[in-house]
Amino acid sequence: MKIDGVPHRTIWPAEDGAGVEVIDQTVLPHAFEVRRLSRWQDAARAISTMVVRGAPLIGATAAWGMALAARADASDTALAEAAAALVASRPTAVNLRWAVEAMQRTLQPLSPADRADTAYAEAARICDAEVAACEAIGEYGEALVRERYDGREPVQVLTHCNAGWLAAVDWGMSLAPVYKAHDAGVPVHVWVDETRPRNQGAALTAWELKAHGVPHTVVVDNAGGHLMQHGRVDLCIVGSDRVAANGDVCNKIGTYLKALAAHDNGVPFFAALPSSTIDWRLAHGRDIPIEERDEAEVTHISGLGPDGQMTSVRVTPEGARAANFGFDVTPARLVTAIITERGVCDASSAGLAGLFPDLAEAAA
Amino acid sequence: MKIDGVPHRTIWPAEDGAGVEVIDQTVLPHAFEVRRLSRWQDAARAISTMVVRGAPLIGATAAWGMALAARADASDTALAEAAAALVASRPTAVNLRWAVEAMQRTLQPLSPADRADTAYAEAARICDAEVAACEAIGEYGEALVRERYDGREPVQVLTHCNAGWLAAVDWGMSLAPVYKAHDAGVPVHVWVDETRPRNQGAALTAWELKAHGVPHTVVVDNAGGHLMQHGRVDLCIVGSDRVAANGDVCNKIGTYLKALAAHDNGVPFFAALPSSTIDWRLAHGRDIPIEERDEAEVTHISGLGPDGQMTSVRVTPEGARAANFGFDVTPARLVTAIITERGVCDASSAGLAGLFPDLAEAAA
Repeated sequence: MKIDGVPHRTIWPAEDGAGVEVIDQTVLPHAFEVRRLSRWQDAARAISTMVVRGAPLIGATAAWGMALAARADASDTALAEAAAALVASRPTAVNLRWAVEAMQRTLQPLSPADRADTAYAEAARICDAEVAACEAIGEYGEALVRERYDGREPVQVLTHCNAGWLAAVDWGMSLAPVYKAHDAGVPVHVWVDETRPRNQGAALTAWELKAHGVPHTVVVDNAGGHLMQHGRVDLCIVGSDRVAANGDVCNKIGTYLKALAAHDNGVPFFAALPSSTIDWRLAHGRDIPIEERDEAEVTHISGLGPDGQMTSVRVTPEGARAANFGFDVTPARLVTAIITERGVCDASSAGLAGLFPDLAEAAA
Repeated sequence: MKIDGVPHRTIWPAEDGAGVEVIDQTVLPHAFEVRRLSRWQDAARAISTMVVRGAPLIGATAAWGMALAARADASDTALAEAAAALVASRPTAVNLRWAVEAMQRTLQPLSPADRADTAYAEAARICDAEVAACEAIGEYGEALVRERYDGREPVQVLTHCNAGWLAAVDWGMSLAPVYKAHDAGVPVHVWVDETRPRNQGAALTAWELKAHGVPHTVVVDNAGGHLMQHGRVDLCIVGSDRVAANGDVCNKIGTYLKALAAHDNGVPFFAALPSSTIDWRLAHGRDIPIEERDEAEVTHISGLGPDGQMTSVRVTPEGARAANFGFDVTPARLVTAIITERGVCDASSAGLAGLFPDLAEAAA
């Protein structure tokens, strides 16, 4: 999508051919900085420290990580080591495993000497395919936004966390329909959940919507229920870090609370995601591993200080303990529909398998 | 309650007789500072700037504000001016109106010359009565905590915002049962919702629980649904800023989301409040005015910086807009019961009027 009118992706091969480059999402919205990933270990660290985040983007970064690994040492042993480390760099999103397995399927039949060039081409192909999938999600989702436009007032969309283009390679998941509608002239306004503890909504979603020119308002995570009670949300769209085969949606912690509020107020609640986010081997959402992160993400908050420097402040009493669960699971019964690159389906085994019979069968 | 073993209240008459003193809640948990309120205007400002907050405490502060007004100028005109300003200092909690009307009922029959001393005595009486009410809430609520103790694991309580003794004169609303249970030897652990945007949970609830020695863990507001899905919450207890006559509970923004999660997971959800918080003249919660506050409370977060100074950092992009609703309304259907100074009742007109026939009839 565009930053001040100039199209960008979140990850791209460096012009000099020596590695890949990414936008550092830990310093947004206060600084725009590009980081070089030269080795697969850089890719793993960029994922675990959330320099890159978002299910499609960490999958894409893992694919590039395998390409960097193949350039350094394309032996089976070395690739297996890189693959294991990349898959383990974050536990919840299934896209890591999906991307690494796709790379391994391509590379394993080749002799080690032939692997590096193919790995670069395959990583680039995976990225392009994710962009195409997200754009298709945008097109299918745009219809759901457009049909709620009354010809007068902007369509009110509530989203949680960041599942925009910063979370993908381009276009995004939950925001792809918003961009498509906005670009097509449908007036849209987005309620942006702040998304504690890492504030991906307040920092990243607000930043990318502003950069592309989409009207939006930041609210605390607590506010969505009140907005829905008062008729101020026409639809919710969220992304996902992993969808179970039965349609249960794992996404950023707090998504479940918004789905409950949407259900209680008759507001449609959509999850938008490429098929790389569906875990066909997992029957139920309750079996998805939920990442627990450092309690300092809860006790301390980073932002731009009065001196113009990134500053971390402690909000809790000295020595207070905190728990930091990264994700929750929204039961399929609360999800109105799932928006994918092949269309919109029920959040159910039948719905998902109906759109993706090939993938569902391959996993069966 | 105790701070390092020493009993405290949140508001008390100054020893020199010249005004009242309060704990400044805008600098907790990072500093413990006492502020002097010398004139009724100081009291109104302390309420509007949230130096004092919490429905019972702002009622008590308004009562003392009327006493300070009577000392300065006890004429009908002057008292009416102070009364109007104190009631308007925050819009949502009904305790302001309740306390000011109670003071006026006592003072109006007296000649202006006799009002000042009586006003001091009446403000002190109102505070003592609120303390007694909150202690009684603690005793009734303790039974609800105790009956969930299995003899082995601590009872897990989730609370939102701060409705502890800092929100009242002493004991508190939602935390009074916790203190009573803890002091009686029932093991209790509290999940403390951070409570964005002003972090009253992370800052105040965590501070007062630590000061009194009650085990607790801070979580972001997004986490409660996940905790309840996984059986890690035995009961929720929240306070209230205003309860409508039908049992709808207005409380800090985000309370409704926790009530939905409790309902979805079969977790009991209690609201604890003194009768001064019940608005008998209001039939439905939807008619409660919801305060909207400065968007800077959302875009900026205060805490202790690396230099040991209170620092405000901006989390949103420069120029981002935010909306800041202070409260939401939890429909009575989601409230398991209301805990008051006269016992526990259904969240319904019949339940409330059954416990308080005198107050319900007086308002009819």
